[in-house]
Amino acid sequence: MSEALRVVVTGAAGQIGYSLLYSVAKGDVFGANQPIELLLLDIQPMLSVLEGVVMELQDCALPLLREVVATADPMVGFKDVDVAILVGAMPRKEGMERKDLLAANVRIFMTQGQAIDKVAKKTVKVVVVGNPANTNALVTRKYAPSIPPQNFTCLTRLDQNRAQAQISSRLGVSHDKVRNCIIWGNHSSTQFPDVRHAIVNIDGKDIPVPEAVKDDSWLKNEFIKTVQQRGGAVIKARKLSSAMSAAKAICDHMRDWWFGTKGNDWVSMGVPSDGNPYGIPDGLVYSFPVRVKPDHSYEIVSGLPIDDFSREKMDATAKELQEERDMAFAACEA
Amino acid sequence: MSEALRVVVTGAAGQIGYSLLYSVAKGDVFGANQPIELLLLDIQPMLSVLEGVVMELQDCALPLLREVVATADPMVGFKDVDVAILVGAMPRKEGMERKDLLAANVRIFMTQGQAIDKVAKKTVKVVVVGNPANTNALVTRKYAPSIPPQNFTCLTRLDQNRAQAQISSRLGVSHDKVRNCIIWGNHSSTQFPDVRHAIVNIDGKDIPVPEAVKDDSWLKNEFIKTVQQRGGAVIKARKLSSAMSAAKAICDHMRDWWFGTKGNDWVSMGVPSDGNPYGIPDGLVYSFPVRVKPDHSYEIVSGLPIDDFSREKMDATAKELQEERDMAFAACEA
Repeated sequence: MSEALRVVVTGAAGQIGYSLLYSVAKGDVFGANQPIELLLLDIQPMLSVLEGVVMELQDCALPLLREVVATADPMVGFKDVDVAILVGAMPRKEGMERKDLLAANVRIFMTQGQAIDKVAKKTVKVVVVGNPANTNALVTRKYAPSIPPQNFTCLTRLDQNRAQAQISSRLGVSHDKVRNCIIWGNHSSTQFPDVRHAIVNIDGKDIPVPEAVKDDSWLKNEFIKTVQQRGGAVIKARKLSSAMSAAKAICDHMRDWWFGTKGNDWVSMGVPSDGNPYGIPDGLVYSFPVRVKPDHSYEIVSGLPIDDFSREKMDATAKELQEERDMAFAACEA
Repeated sequence: MSEALRVVVTGAAGQIGYSLLYSVAKGDVFGANQPIELLLLDIQPMLSVLEGVVMELQDCALPLLREVVATADPMVGFKDVDVAILVGAMPRKEGMERKDLLAANVRIFMTQGQAIDKVAKKTVKVVVVGNPANTNALVTRKYAPSIPPQNFTCLTRLDQNRAQAQISSRLGVSHDKVRNCIIWGNHSSTQFPDVRHAIVNIDGKDIPVPEAVKDDSWLKNEFIKTVQQRGGAVIKARKLSSAMSAAKAICDHMRDWWFGTKGNDWVSMGVPSDGNPYGIPDGLVYSFPVRVKPDHSYEIVSGLPIDDFSREKMDATAKELQEERDMAFAACEA
């Protein structure tokens, strides 16, 4: 067996963490032969709850789980980690302005970025889940200059999975028959779920999704809205935000980043927009279609034709990200 | 791909259900090539929450998941099911007497037994998780006379996993190196966690656990108490009862029942005590070490030597089960 992989999860005492830790410890992300050391980071008041989670992880009797450390100290939690899954963030409270929410999160992700810079492995792969995920990833990266920028990503796989599920359900095929759905931009309601380049396999034949769906109006309106507002719909029904499906998407994101994407297919990840891909301004963390190689390196899929409808939506979500960045960086200076 | 397996989970809107459904739908229990139809049963007031769970299951985009039905009607929930995982039960409320708790659960499991009798497949495999699990399984079986008695089991695998985790942690080996821990009797604090016949593999060599631990007093006292009281310790820390580890144990129980146990090894399951195995009275659901064949049939491991210490503990937990049965059956008549 290989050396243990050190994986930190922040906000580990929360409900996404609870669903996620088991999958990571069980081998669903890094493979059935990869021993894992889990580091659970949360705020001081959650340490008792974390203690219970540690007991349960032990009681799962998982062969790959070598060690579990629960801590409120980022310098302990990020020590020598190979992978950092940043789930914890300040949630939006009633009456809180967007600026204040951004400022509160800047403080959290600045501290974590600094800790990552100091004590994580230089190869650490970071995925930010806590909202506003794209901008939190940008802040984390800003404070960890010793780590390559492309190692900071944010999760939009949940949105991609939701888009894929909507399409497969509409076409009455199993979920794995639909590939190459794209989420462009921000993990927020301005995101652009795009299936114009997606493929569905029906009876062994690959067909462009728009051709199979045969309803451009549904794809341009209801489909996009359903995916954009899915998180709210789950909260309304469950009275709690998505956890099971978020954890599943985190596993998908990390597994594909770790082992690479299949063949010529792509997945969506929030990644640095350095180099103006698709005319998106530099210096954002923006969700693009990416292909990942088995050595963990990835590249943004280039050359996809973008029509006016898409262009407008891609720019609108970029604009929101620029505003978020400006507000966040102003808070960094403050 | 084979025909879809129909699996019902009761109390599906609860936190064990939330952890469990994903694993079942993902293929962790019945294999990576077995399509699944999930039936989620819960009480009427939970149907909105269940709707959110259904949305999230869809958003997980799992290739094996064919259909999800959420219902409050047992006749719909148990219709043609191959597997029934009965998680929902009346929890003990403050000031509630044991007799009243048993009576409340008799009503639930009587109704479910009757529905199983009428509409489930005759080969249905039932595992009861909701407490008092052993006696609830007995009641369910009583009201489903058209199904073979041995198809009604209850979960003690969580206790077995906890025992295994305590031993592997004590010996500093990974969890899969410890085998053949036994839970005897009731899934309650009278259970007898027994590692006198358990094996640990150290450096490739099988060693009896008592010989490796070299501390009979710890095994007879602290170890047993820790396992018996582990559920309470988790609640104390987490402020919620075990869900992740319970769901994991349910998956272990069902997977071993479905595919069979390995080689000469055994696992613990609450099963009918018909035929007086180890002198345990007939007509209880009592946890024994069992071996399962690939055709899903199982037999209680026979011939293990039982010393006075074990005898006393095995009889004490049997006595509790007899009392529970008598109270429950009295409630059935009422």
